[in-house]
This record gives sequence, C-alpha cells and structure tokens, in this order.
Amino acid sequence: MAYRIGLDISGGDRAPDEIIKGAILARKELGYDVVLVGVKQEIQDALTKQGAALSNFEIVHAPEKIEMAESPAASCRKKKNSSIVIGAKLLKEKKIDAFVSCGNTGAVVCASTLALRLIEGVERPGIGLMMPNPSGISLVVDVGANIDPKPIHLFQYGIMASVYYNLVLDKENPTVGLLNIGEEASKGNDFTKSVHKSFTASSLNFTGNLEAKDLFSGKCDCVVCDGFAGNIALKVSESCATFVAKFLLETMKSDFFGIIGLLLAKRSLKKFKKMIDYAEYGGAPLLGVDGVVIIGHGRSNARAVKNAIKVAGEELKRDLIAKIKVKVNEVCQNQDIKQILNV
Amino acid sequence: MAYRIGLDISGGDRAPDEIIKGAILARKELGYDVVLVGVKQEIQDALTKQGAALSNFEIVHAPEKIEMAESPAASCRKKKNSSIVIGAKLLKEKKIDAFVSCGNTGAVVCASTLALRLIEGVERPGIGLMMPNPSGISLVVDVGANIDPKPIHLFQYGIMASVYYNLVLDKENPTVGLLNIGEEASKGNDFTKSVHKSFTASSLNFTGNLEAKDLFSGKCDCVVCDGFAGNIALKVSESCATFVAKFLLETMKSDFFGIIGLLLAKRSLKKFKKMIDYAEYGGAPLLGVDGVVIIGHGRSNARAVKNAIKVAGEELKRDLIAKIKVKVNEVCQNQDIKQILNV
Repeated sequence: MAYRIGLDISGGDRAPDEIIKGAILARKELGYDVVLVGVKQEIQDALTKQGAALSNFEIVHAPEKIEMAESPAASCRKKKNSSIVIGAKLLKEKKIDAFVSCGNTGAVVCASTLALRLIEGVERPGIGLMMPNPSGISLVVDVGANIDPKPIHLFQYGIMASVYYNLVLDKENPTVGLLNIGEEASKGNDFTKSVHKSFTASSLNFTGNLEAKDLFSGKCDCVVCDGFAGNIALKVSESCATFVAKFLLETMKSDFFGIIGLLLAKRSLKKFKKMIDYAEYGGAPLLGVDGVVIIGHGRSNARAVKNAIKVAGEELKRDLIAKIKVKVNEVCQNQDIKQILNV
Repeated sequence: MAYRIGLDISGGDRAPDEIIKGAILARKELGYDVVLVGVKQEIQDALTKQGAALSNFEIVHAPEKIEMAESPAASCRKKKNSSIVIGAKLLKEKKIDAFVSCGNTGAVVCASTLALRLIEGVERPGIGLMMPNPSGISLVVDVGANIDPKPIHLFQYGIMASVYYNLVLDKENPTVGLLNIGEEASKGNDFTKSVHKSFTASSLNFTGNLEAKDLFSGKCDCVVCDGFAGNIALKVSESCATFVAKFLLETMKSDFFGIIGLLLAKRSLKKFKKMIDYAEYGGAPLLGVDGVVIIGHGRSNARAVKNAIKVAGEELKRDLIAKIKVKVNEVCQNQDIKQILNV
C-alpha cells in the first residue's frame, strides 16, 4: 500500500540535502508517497539540486525551524509553524499516515504528545532504539523521552516493546529484560525493584534484570530502562565504539606492519563499519503516542532517512498502534500489578 | 616509606592465585609490606605454589568469604570473620595503612563505611573510576556505591574527585563536569539541575554538563554522576569495547586478506589491548570513607592487583584523606550552596 509519510526536511545535522535524498530513495525503493514538511523554497531547491521532479512530492510549507539545542517545550509552544509542530498536526488530522523527523528529539516527543495524545491507557511515551548484537537486534526503551519516570511507565514500555518486537521484528513471545546494576531481583533501588516485581507478576516473557555489560550480548530482545540511564547507555555505546575503532586504527597506523595489515583488511573493515552503522537500523519509534512517529538520528544520511521511513511503513502495515492499545489495556488490568505499581 | 597494605585474598574471580601473585609483585616492585587477609591455609598454599617465602608476608586469618553475588549489607552483618569485614576492621584499628579488595564491591563499601565511618562533613561514599581517554585519564565518581543519591552527595563527589585529581594525578585546578543528557544548564531532571547550580556557585573548576558521548573525549578531568547511571556507563563501555573488538576481529578473520592483515597487525593490536586494559589503571578509590580503601576489578590479574596497591600508596603519600576533609568543609561552608542543596 502506498502510505503517505510526512518527512521533516528542516531537522537533522545534514538537512536539507541528505533528508531530501532519503525522501527520493524511499519513494523509489519503497513506493511510498513522501510529504515534505519544511521551508518550501529550500525543499524545491534541494529537489532541483538532486534532479528530482517537483511534481513527485507534495510539499507542506513550514517556515519556522526548531534548532537542535532549543528547549523542547518552549520551542513547540512558540514555533507553531515549525516543521515538527506542523508535521505532528498533519498526522493528527490524518493528512499523513506517519511522521518522520531527524530534528530535535525532545521537540518531536513534545509536539507529538501534544497533537496526537497518548494511546488510551498509556501514561508516558518512550523512545525505542534498535541496538545491534551478534545474534540480531535488541530494542531498548526508553532512551530519553522520559527522564523522571514512575515504575508504571517502565512497565508499560515493556509491554509496548514486546508488542513492537513481536510484530515488526517478527518474533513470538520476545524476551523482556530490565536494565539494572545487578542480575539478582534484589539489586537496584526501590524504583527498579518495583518495576521488577510488576514484570514478574505479568504475562510478559520477563527474564529478569539485565546488566549493562550484557546490553550487546543479545540476551534480551527487549530492554527496559529509565530515559536518563538509557540515554547515557546509548551515548556511551556510540562514543565508545568510535573511540575503540579510532584508537585501534591509530595504533595500527603507527606501526609498519600495522599499516600493511590495515590495507589488507580494508574490505573487512568496511563490512564491520556497515554492521555497527546506525543508518542500517533506521529510526527510533516513539512508542505510546497515538500515531506512528519515527525519530531519526540527528546525523542521519540519506540511507538512514530511507530506513526510518521504512520502519514507519512496517509499523503501519502491522497496525502497531491498535495492537499496543489492546495489549496495554489487557496486561494493565491485572489487580496484583496495579497494587505493585500503586496505580 | 614502607606502607602496610592489607590485601583481601578471598575476593576476586581469580582468587587466590592472581591476588597472591599481585602481592608478591607489589612487595618486590613497590617495597610495601603486604598484609594478606583470608583463609590462612589457602594463603600459605598459594604462596608456596608461587615459590614465595612465607616469612615475607604477614597473614591475618579470615575464615569466612563473601561471595560476589551476596547481598552487601546482609553478608557484612552475618560474616564478621570474612576477609572484607576483617580487612576494614584492621584499617580502623590502624594495623594496616590501607585496604585493597577485588571482592564484592557492595560489601567493601558497606564494611568500610561501617568500620571506618565517613570523613567528617562527607555524607556518602562514592566509587571513583579511572577511564582512559586519548589525552589522559578521566576520574568518574560515582560508579555504583550510591544508587539513590541526593544532590549534596554528587556535589561532594565533585569536591573529592577534584582533590584526588589534583593530588594523585598531579594537576592544578582540574576541571569538573556533570554527566547529563544534554550540555545546556537547562537539560536533565530536577536532580541534575540542582547539582549543576551548586557546582556553578562553588569555587571548583566546573565546566558544566558533560554528555555521555564525551565521556571518552577527555573533555573533563573529573566527571560526576549518580551511581546508577555511572554504573551503567561503566558497564556499557566495558562491554562495548569488547563487542567492537570481537566483532572487528571476527569480520577480519572471515576474509583471506583480513587474516593476513590481522597477523601483520598483531604487534599493534597487542599495544592497543594494553592501552584499554583496566589492569593498567589499578583499582578504584572508595572516596569519602575515613581511610584508604581501593576496590579492584573482579577480574583483576596480578598486575591489576599490584596497580591497585600502588594507587593505595599514592593516596597515602599525598595524605589524601586529610586534604579531602579540609576541602569538603571549606567548600560546603558556602551559604548559597547550602541553600541550593537544601542542607
């Protein structure tokens, strides 16, 4: 089906050119209608630069831009004509089927929550991130939408992640783990202990606490954590990978045989780089809002943009929002869990 | 000066052999008297196995062992004759000048705090970790002693880290950063905002928030964070480094030229491994308790043990505890800061 995917052209470090290139790629490879939201003149110029027919894309003019460092709440309030606020509104009005932005993450969360509201029964939105591991992918929720969460929020992230993994990543009864500072149920603070208890009492395939050292082991399909710790984990892993690779290459370059080794291993290094490249995994689903919203990485290139659009399409195909609604309301009915979570 | 350093022989994944080897190394290379705390027979056997003269070491018999997975508080209460509880007691009674353990981290924190109490003015202990970066070392406090901290605790970690960096890592006026999910002062939750304000009002060389992606950049000498996030950051970085290195090597091994490249680059890979090896940086100081306590990595080998003992000696040489006491009481006098921190 030819979905209509709204794409924020003003957001992202490489906007507008790489975003436009991503839109062109997505239209060609996925067959979706991509609705470009941003400054009209900039969009037209960028399309022309890429030699694309202007008639292939619908453009929605959004004269204002929310910068990466702006305060999410304040910018959403003030910049009603920004690409992010208009994109969320288009989705609310069903003029598009999904919205993708590589802009200010906090603003996307804020604008989407305000315009779309939350799925009935869900208390807070959470950002899901696909992390590669040797045997596949782990979905980590939340990596930054909610930095002052209550236990019920994490419990619901577990439900939503589980539904997502089942539908979009196509696995029956995916495992759910809780990111904590130790494996035993007794580890962590009161907050994590309460979340642990609620998962244990639920029908989810909960495998207990997951230590951060196992985040890349593939031990759990879904990993639940608070947005503060999740964001730290995500950023540390990104920078650590870069640091290790850089350090390693520099050490090799400082040695004659190392240089020869590097040259010979060039092809495998390229393969490796592709494996750990975030662009492969597309964008991060914003789970919990009542509409399909995908947050792309700020550094997204054309391929990452296309893959983010692809993720949006997968969610639509699987009717993710409706399925989350059913599951959240089913699992949260449990009286024991309500008591544990004090709701 | 020949310090008397107490060493826990029962703690650590490679106890007792690697720990004993570390003690022998430390005695030989650093000239310290190492007091071995653990099961007497095991210690004697291990010394004999290494061909060391039993007369070179004082042994304090500690028949009980606290296992890695045991609950810290409960095990310290129940196992009064464990190496960790006895080691902390020896330090309290000044029968040793410092105590080093690679055992159960929580139990070391707990036993040390109970036996030694905190430095006057300090409200909570914190674990400091040395993290390598391209230009030197960052000291991160706290990485797991205190997972439910108040802002005053983090403020004091900043002071203690600053004193430590100045004295032990020999740098005037070291910079202090606060680990957060964004650089701007407005980023984070109420907790981090309050800590940020207190640092800004202080005489420390505070450089503001530090994003986790910059943890390996060497941007800050001292990095302050809550023990939960700090522990996650530490564990993620460890596993990420392993994951990246393993992935990279496996990719290279799957390709003919890659294998040749690997063989040629063997020497540089070894150099690289050494650079990111935790064993180089010794143990983690337990800051805030009224005595020199060093927590070694659970996986410590002989060299790591020796380096942990070396760190203990450096703290003693610099009279760290007394200097921390003076500085904490000086900085915490500030009325504005007291008001910000609500103390």
